[in-house]
Amino acid sequence: MQCYRDKILTMDDIISLCKRRGFIYQGSDIYGGLAGTWDWGPFGIMLKRNVMQAWWNFFVDKRPDIFGVDAEVIMNHKVWEASGHVKTFADPMVEDLVNHKRWRADHLLKDHGIDADGLTNDELTKLIQDNNVKSPDGNPLSGVKSFNMMFRTTVGAIESSDAVTYLRPETAQGIFANYRNVVDSLYPDMPFGIAQQGKAFRNEISPRDFIFRSREFEQMEIEYFVHPDQWEAEFENWLKLVHEFLEQVIGLPAKMIHDYEVPAQDRAHYSKRTIDVNFDYPIGQEELMGIAYRTDFDLMNIQNATGKSMEYRPKDGGEPFVPHVIEPSFGVERLIMAILTACYTEDEVDGSKRTLLKLPKSLAPVVVTVSPLLKNKPELVAKAKEVYNQLQQAFPGRVNWDDSGNIGKRYRKADEIGVPHCVVIDFDSLNNDDVTVRDRDTTKQTRVKVSELAEYLGK
Amino acid sequence: MQCYRDKILTMDDIISLCKRRGFIYQGSDIYGGLAGTWDWGPFGIMLKRNVMQAWWNFFVDKRPDIFGVDAEVIMNHKVWEASGHVKTFADPMVEDLVNHKRWRADHLLKDHGIDADGLTNDELTKLIQDNNVKSPDGNPLSGVKSFNMMFRTTVGAIESSDAVTYLRPETAQGIFANYRNVVDSLYPDMPFGIAQQGKAFRNEISPRDFIFRSREFEQMEIEYFVHPDQWEAEFENWLKLVHEFLEQVIGLPAKMIHDYEVPAQDRAHYSKRTIDVNFDYPIGQEELMGIAYRTDFDLMNIQNATGKSMEYRPKDGGEPFVPHVIEPSFGVERLIMAILTACYTEDEVDGSKRTLLKLPKSLAPVVVTVSPLLKNKPELVAKAKEVYNQLQQAFPGRVNWDDSGNIGKRYRKADEIGVPHCVVIDFDSLNNDDVTVRDRDTTKQTRVKVSELAEYLGK
Repeated sequence: MQCYRDKILTMDDIISLCKRRGFIYQGSDIYGGLAGTWDWGPFGIMLKRNVMQAWWNFFVDKRPDIFGVDAEVIMNHKVWEASGHVKTFADPMVEDLVNHKRWRADHLLKDHGIDADGLTNDELTKLIQDNNVKSPDGNPLSGVKSFNMMFRTTVGAIESSDAVTYLRPETAQGIFANYRNVVDSLYPDMPFGIAQQGKAFRNEISPRDFIFRSREFEQMEIEYFVHPDQWEAEFENWLKLVHEFLEQVIGLPAKMIHDYEVPAQDRAHYSKRTIDVNFDYPIGQEELMGIAYRTDFDLMNIQNATGKSMEYRPKDGGEPFVPHVIEPSFGVERLIMAILTACYTEDEVDGSKRTLLKLPKSLAPVVVTVSPLLKNKPELVAKAKEVYNQLQQAFPGRVNWDDSGNIGKRYRKADEIGVPHCVVIDFDSLNNDDVTVRDRDTTKQTRVKVSELAEYLGK
Repeated sequence: MQCYRDKILTMDDIISLCKRRGFIYQGSDIYGGLAGTWDWGPFGIMLKRNVMQAWWNFFVDKRPDIFGVDAEVIMNHKVWEASGHVKTFADPMVEDLVNHKRWRADHLLKDHGIDADGLTNDELTKLIQDNNVKSPDGNPLSGVKSFNMMFRTTVGAIESSDAVTYLRPETAQGIFANYRNVVDSLYPDMPFGIAQQGKAFRNEISPRDFIFRSREFEQMEIEYFVHPDQWEAEFENWLKLVHEFLEQVIGLPAKMIHDYEVPAQDRAHYSKRTIDVNFDYPIGQEELMGIAYRTDFDLMNIQNATGKSMEYRPKDGGEPFVPHVIEPSFGVERLIMAILTACYTEDEVDGSKRTLLKLPKSLAPVVVTVSPLLKNKPELVAKAKEVYNQLQQAFPGRVNWDDSGNIGKRYRKADEIGVPHCVVIDFDSLNNDDVTVRDRDTTKQTRVKVSELAEYLGK
């Protein structure tokens, strides 16, 4: 199934719908919020669960060569020293010299139309001076300094340097740290992958763009371990798989997806090839996910830091080797942002503007809404409850009851939640045992027998 | 389905099986570990996903009155001030006066057979002195002080008191903080509940007992909002539901589950009734989950702290009221610990000791293992692959391939992972299109036609 976009969207269109309809709220909203954090409401968590389950089905459950793990958010600080994050996981920061607010230097430059990717702090400082860039409050700026983006905390009751650690800024290291455990427990054939879904945390200086760049987010990552000779073929294969997932499983339109081959000078130092899979977001073409060839960088870091061998011993008696790694890395929020962008639609129905989310049925939080035509007619309500219960058996948790307002208003509400079908029980239903099924996308109405309803909706 | 326990278990039996078979590893293992953290391996994450999904199905998907949310781990610090956690979420701590290691005072007393529940720091200090309790390293101890168990961190690039916050020590406050949002978006009928699954973090001074008391863990909580007059009936109803879930859905033996009515002086200050549902763990009878009547304590805290009304306006025009709350609260790790305890079994097969996990089929990570009798006979391997692929269609992600060692060893491995059935393809299979199906619990072997296999295993 395909989604469509019929208008020029703004981020505000999506934010407003998400809050109004219980998809996503500002984090700590009732206390005035906390910048860069977002809570999932009842329909949002259903959408998120469906998306994460679709990913797990496609990349883990269906494949004999990929195994799941679930590592902790809080790991030994040595993980982040060996991985290089303590030294280098930093953003360029400037300070407003008047009110001392801090900002991302590269973001301020981008807002002035100046590309600042991959520059050193000195180069950024020079660009800011040369272009007379001010803070968003109109004040002069300091020079550019590095700011480590990991959230720091202390483990245990004794304050010591050994007790300091960080919330993981990526799930990948939790996978690498368990590579040896998985090989020892399962001894899988090569190539094989380890997958993980879970939270990651980055202390963004100036979080922005809704859930696109937040301080707490959910990742879905696979580290795929291959013989060093095989990386090029495996990389190509992963690129194909990722497109299959995004286009066939999730239903994103191919024309909104763009592969960007990251040039050598812009790649992470450990990567010999990276493709950013970009998407046409309301904020422009931005990274939806990435595929990186990470070489043996991470496993060698662990081997060097711990003295423990990361070699894989081939079952056919071949020469042991430290595997190389292809990493397809998804952010759940960016994927959902892409789905919302693709599916948010406005059209005109009966002379008035209508907003709808053209979510594929497999991802829609609610598959069907059930309503009695009138809520004050007990015989209609009883029949509708009967239909509701029957459908709830067929689609557990994905059936909504709505008897508020008039039918027109219920349809509009269901459209905004992305419900593919609305079922209405009227007086004819009592005699004929059939109901009206209204289609979200076409607004067409069809009479369907109650006995055939679940099958009709499951198509 | 019921699980059984045939021997006196120790925690070490379970820890050892979990590590050996890829269920649970020490967190940050490869770097020497991090106390109180545990990573889930390939079979562990499958078991955990099955348990969490069973909970969500039973308490959320099947019920029209319960809605999910997913709040952030990092919330505004005002949440934890209003909830009382900043002031009172503390454990009693003593310090070893020689090596300055710190310990839980009540745990040290308990290890000496002295009950120390609900005592003040002064009372604990006196008990330690009177009983001449030493540190585990044999040294004298300091007086008892309070130690706040929340992990502290700083949000944003500016160090200020406003930027300090904590990792959530419970998911419940993420629900209460979203109560107003859910009512505004959905206006559900009363009574209704909000459910959440997610990580919580507690900086335990001396974590112990495997995953039973760890620093990072997963909660599954429901806040069920009721009219104040209804709390007693709803509380009874929740107690019944919880038992139905534990015994019917999860399959824990009723005789290992014990309700403990917490006496007034031992209850949290906000609770007017609490039942701890305890379980016979290897470490003794301990809390598996709890049901608490929290009154309007949390919503009134929020109303007082924010000035925003927490009242619910009845749809029939009745008097608005601040709902009262029944909270059934589960820890995923404690539930899985109970499952492992109930299902871990040792018996004797063919004259030698056997270890097996009698997991119910609905929770078992792997439903069936498929093996060719001999791995060096291509025709057996080809037929086995055919059967494997067919079963993988029927049970995606829950079929294991095993061609290592001899059949006896494969059976023992599958028994330890809790696989209900092993399928073996032998030379007769090539002619008769049938296979041997071996039952984990009885070790009985049955011939089954390949065409009937999926149905046989799905029974």
